Amino acid sequence: MTITMYDLAGAEADRRFSPFCWRAKMALAHKGLAVETVPWRFTDKDQLPQPNQGRVPVIVDGDRVVHDSTAIADYLEERYADRPSLFGDEIGRALTRFVQNWTETVLQVGLIRLVVLDIHRHSHPKDQPYFRSSREERFGATLEEVVKDREARLPAFRASLDPLRRTVERQDFISGEGPAYPDYIVFGAFQWARAISDFEVLAADDPVFPWRGRMLDLFDGLARRAPAYGG
Amino acid sequence: MTITMYDLAGAEADRRFSPFCWRAKMALAHKGLAVETVPWRFTDKDQLPQPNQGRVPVIVDGDRVVHDSTAIADYLEERYADRPSLFGDEIGRALTRFVQNWTETVLQVGLIRLVVLDIHRHSHPKDQPYFRSSREERFGATLEEVVKDREARLPAFRASLDPLRRTVERQDFISGEGPAYPDYIVFGAFQWARAISDFEVLAADDPVFPWRGRMLDLFDGLARRAPAYGG
Repeated sequence: MTITMYDLAGAEADRRFSPFCWRAKMALAHKGLAVETVPWRFTDKDQLPQPNQGRVPVIVDGDRVVHDSTAIADYLEERYADRPSLFGDEIGRALTRFVQNWTETVLQVGLIRLVVLDIHRHSHPKDQPYFRSSREERFGATLEEVVKDREARLPAFRASLDPLRRTVERQDFISGEGPAYPDYIVFGAFQWARAISDFEVLAADDPVFPWRGRMLDLFDGLARRAPAYGG
Repeated sequence: MTITMYDLAGAEADRRFSPFCWRAKMALAHKGLAVETVPWRFTDKDQLPQPNQGRVPVIVDGDRVVHDSTAIADYLEERYADRPSLFGDEIGRALTRFVQNWTETVLQVGLIRLVVLDIHRHSHPKDQPYFRSSREERFGATLEEVVKDREARLPAFRASLDPLRRTVERQDFISGEGPAYPDYIVFGAFQWARAISDFEVLAADDPVFPWRGRMLDLFDGLARRAPAYGG
């Protein structure tokens, strides 16, 4: 049975940019599961199946509704235990959380300050007032002010990728010879940026660049085929 | 048979402060292996068994000499495969490298700028000229200049621990319910600092603090019993 997934969309319904939804879509593909996505906007809170927390991803698998990307990965790993593992063993699962915490406290925090105005630009007009006011409150600055000096901040952002860079310089994927959920977590952040921004966050000679390319190629180019910019 | 390990020592022979040697000592203890350490100083290059790269740790296990902490961990995992695993499965081993790369590009880089003068102070007099000149060349500044504003840099250092903090806030060890090599890699850096410096790098209410305490308690207080400061 096909799984349904509510997926954050921009003004164009096929422009999907949530880093958390990308984690889930890659995890579903890793498990070889068919999925049908439903475009969803920030302000469509009442259109999600219950239970939810007003955010996506939410998946519906038969009579099960699972929300939150981490809970979805855990659910898929348990429910589809006979398919390729997302985490490996218990140490792999624990270390996945370290990669997630790095992604959420370093990578995504750095990225949003580069591309937040581009997210606003690609958001559905009905979402734009909500997006602007919630993010401007969080940053204590207008979106224009947040990104104003992004060229100057790019070297520090790229330096912050050192742990990732040194890892994928020496192995094809963060998870080793093949990709697993830690790669999807990190990739979700890069796919978020490239889905809505033409601002190239990686230098062409950065070892992270070909890793991102390998991620884009997975599952018959699942992420590469999605509307996005360059890289 | 007891394994011999060459271990970096300060002016006092029992003050052992190399983060890489601490990784190896914790890994040996994890495997339940008896070890006899030989105090070694930076300038004792000719006293190491062959082959070596002029650095410690170097271990001698029967007729095998293994140098470099990563090679030692790999050797122990393979040679003592029937003992508790240091990495778990292949995904765990791959993600261990991400933790190592974070430790070496963020944690150790931040720590050395806080405690490098204390390392010099505790080094053997015969090592001090080498240590000062090599580190001052690396930093392009005197050791005194490097640490001068360390109080002011402490908040940024502590912020850089966010990925670790969020992980050990939610699970006892980086590697999950029990410690494994990723914990030893990160702990080695903290033990390095506390072995030679009374400058407390962690706030008392930091969730990293009790994790460090759990690490100090392991193996009958192996690291807690070693000469060091506070914390």
